[in-house]
Amino acid sequence: MFSAVLIANRGEIALRVARACRELGVRTVMVHSTADRDSPALRLADECVHIGPAPSRRSYLYPPAILEAALRTGVDAIHPGYGFLSEDPDFAEMCEAQGLIFIGPPAHVMSRLGDKAQAREVASAAGLPVLPGSSRAVENGLEAKEIAERIGYPVIIKAIAGGGGRGMAVVRAGRELARAYATTRAAAQATFGDGRVYVERFLESTRHVEVQILADHHGNVVSLGERDCSVQRRRQKLIEETPATGLPAGLAENICAAAVRGARACGYVGAGTFEFLVDDKGDFYFIEVNSRIQVEHPVTEMATGIDIVAEQLRVASGSPLSFRQQDVVPRGVALECRVNAEDPDRDFLPTAGLVDEFVPPGGPFTRVDTHGAAGLRVTADYDSLLAKVIVWAPDREQAIARMERALDEFRISGHGIRTTTGFLREMLGNSLFRDAKHTTSLVSDVLDLR
Amino acid sequence: MFSAVLIANRGEIALRVARACRELGVRTVMVHSTADRDSPALRLADECVHIGPAPSRRSYLYPPAILEAALRTGVDAIHPGYGFLSEDPDFAEMCEAQGLIFIGPPAHVMSRLGDKAQAREVASAAGLPVLPGSSRAVENGLEAKEIAERIGYPVIIKAIAGGGGRGMAVVRAGRELARAYATTRAAAQATFGDGRVYVERFLESTRHVEVQILADHHGNVVSLGERDCSVQRRRQKLIEETPATGLPAGLAENICAAAVRGARACGYVGAGTFEFLVDDKGDFYFIEVNSRIQVEHPVTEMATGIDIVAEQLRVASGSPLSFRQQDVVPRGVALECRVNAEDPDRDFLPTAGLVDEFVPPGGPFTRVDTHGAAGLRVTADYDSLLAKVIVWAPDREQAIARMERALDEFRISGHGIRTTTGFLREMLGNSLFRDAKHTTSLVSDVLDLR
Repeated sequence: MFSAVLIANRGEIALRVARACRELGVRTVMVHSTADRDSPALRLADECVHIGPAPSRRSYLYPPAILEAALRTGVDAIHPGYGFLSEDPDFAEMCEAQGLIFIGPPAHVMSRLGDKAQAREVASAAGLPVLPGSSRAVENGLEAKEIAERIGYPVIIKAIAGGGGRGMAVVRAGRELARAYATTRAAAQATFGDGRVYVERFLESTRHVEVQILADHHGNVVSLGERDCSVQRRRQKLIEETPATGLPAGLAENICAAAVRGARACGYVGAGTFEFLVDDKGDFYFIEVNSRIQVEHPVTEMATGIDIVAEQLRVASGSPLSFRQQDVVPRGVALECRVNAEDPDRDFLPTAGLVDEFVPPGGPFTRVDTHGAAGLRVTADYDSLLAKVIVWAPDREQAIARMERALDEFRISGHGIRTTTGFLREMLGNSLFRDAKHTTSLVSDVLDLR
Repeated sequence: MFSAVLIANRGEIALRVARACRELGVRTVMVHSTADRDSPALRLADECVHIGPAPSRRSYLYPPAILEAALRTGVDAIHPGYGFLSEDPDFAEMCEAQGLIFIGPPAHVMSRLGDKAQAREVASAAGLPVLPGSSRAVENGLEAKEIAERIGYPVIIKAIAGGGGRGMAVVRAGRELARAYATTRAAAQATFGDGRVYVERFLESTRHVEVQILADHHGNVVSLGERDCSVQRRRQKLIEETPATGLPAGLAENICAAAVRGARACGYVGAGTFEFLVDDKGDFYFIEVNSRIQVEHPVTEMATGIDIVAEQLRVASGSPLSFRQQDVVPRGVALECRVNAEDPDRDFLPTAGLVDEFVPPGGPFTRVDTHGAAGLRVTADYDSLLAKVIVWAPDREQAIARMERALDEFRISGHGIRTTTGFLREMLGNSLFRDAKHTTSLVSDVLDLR
């Protein structure tokens, strides 16, 4: 195992990684921006290094500062968490060049999977169903229109370098296409520094089902089961659960097997997530791979008993996975709700301010991953995630009741601070959700009815 | 299910019961003394009722005030938690007389098991091994000495009405017997209002192994597996775990089967614990039954996924258990550490004061049951338990590493406040404990070496 790891992230995921390191006897170095200098997360690190001012491109997204901190503190490896540099193959290569282990898949694998059109090809070649669409970047608006007419409307234009639900537009008729193409290109260029886009058939009413994969350097690839993340707002997940309830019999198993096949085909190593859409006929389609730890990984941990972050560390240090596929026996139902510092009455506008009171829920089968605390200053510099509340129960009905109790118990207040707790509570009470008949349009349908 | 339940307790167990009630849709009424009027536990109740001043005999141990609150608030049932009135058959009968359900075994069962000599007889009749000793109250010091000489020294003199490790004395030679007899009688009279004592063979070096039982009104009796609680100081448990590691093969199964037999024999209903001692030859002996929820119940919950408090409520309301014996499939290893407000450097003297900072640990497979919070005033009125830290992992080594991480993370401070966290940390590092070769004398042996 490593003797020291640098955590190139912030917030709850920095804490999560620090805890895994401590339990494995690994010394931790946490980097932080000026805005995060008082973050309670830092208390759990053995050493903290200031790497730059609040804007991410000058701190958490700035490789030279992070690498300098890593070399100076003598760590063996860098854990990138999620977001920031976690899916950046260039950063992975820079780490390697400095003799540091990047805790994630090999750079060339990340590079292929990060290109959404290439990822489609890899998946398709491995026999995974993909949606009809272009398997490479579309050259211009005219070509986009030709493809759209061939595969039929509605279509979705997506950034090739995209991910995490950003940089995409749905087009329902030919007349909208040229503008959507131009807008998506521009947005992709601005967000990812890569304006290339591709076109794919868009499914109106789908379930988002994804599979947690772990793979080691010894050829072992296992699935830890699927998660349903269909409760989304603007393609940002709000509620995640495992197993995916309400799918046709045998479908989840097929999707998991497809993900393992895909991971093998691309030489995947580490923790990753294969994402799929399931349509109302029960057909499923590969959409993308997230080649990092995901926000919603705890639901899988609660159901399987496997510490995914600890396995990331083991695998990256060269050890084989600590378990085999047949040892993965998921149990019961786990749910996660993301509590964001946003104002549900103002179109989920991020809120900022000083947290006065912060009392997370407790109790049996209830886990809260959070960097929150009284005294935390929430700023507009970073994403609005304040806490993840995760619960487990023998069945879905009890898991929902437990989550309702946990959210009711959560006390967060402070000048300027609003949270999504009440909105999450409302979603849990929605009858489509309770019957597991919801799709990715649940949240927008609910908001439209207001 | 009940529509409302009164919680006749305080601290972490009051919170624990309130959470279970909420998840079952049951309204909660929490009673409290003047000393507890600002307790954070009260926030989780739907209604709070002040029942008297700080001294327990005038509030938590005063049935008229509790019953009056129950009748006035219109609850269906009373959950007594542990300690206080939880094992008082007279209180159970008073509840019944007022048309209220006492959440616990029937009064006559509690009455028999509460009399330690009768409990021995019940167990023995059910074929459970008991230690050689008197099966009824000893009349005088002379009789005690006769028995001791017959069964051989060392012996232990125990209060018939005792429990929870209080009211007992070990006697190693005949010349000590008369004084120990007199002292124990006086202590038993003062503590339990019942001076009767009995004499039993004392085992020097034992493991304390207990079995969690759940039984319903429909004849179902199940074991949720055993717990090892050998890390004790003055017969107060400090660290509890499941399963009991290091016992001879098959022994734990035999002990669990014996407990089920004992529970059936006495007509047990509800949650209860059968306690045993295991000697160095691998023989086991029944010692007593705790006819209530126990402090250490969470380790069993973590390993089995069963919510024991919710089952207490189901069973008390007349429902059958929600699972069968074959559904109980314990997984991995769970550990609990009791964090007490005590000063380990002053012979574990309870400390009192105002808590300034209280940040419990979090993270995967980590649960903290606590009523603690910044601003909590710890007084000498009640027991010193501040928090229970419970962790789970696939194996014991990882569970210990997780517990060490969790204890290191726990921040508690305040003027006058000392805690046992550091001492627990030391126990976890003890090589006998790590090798699961420790006995109930571990703590005193460690303290003697200082």
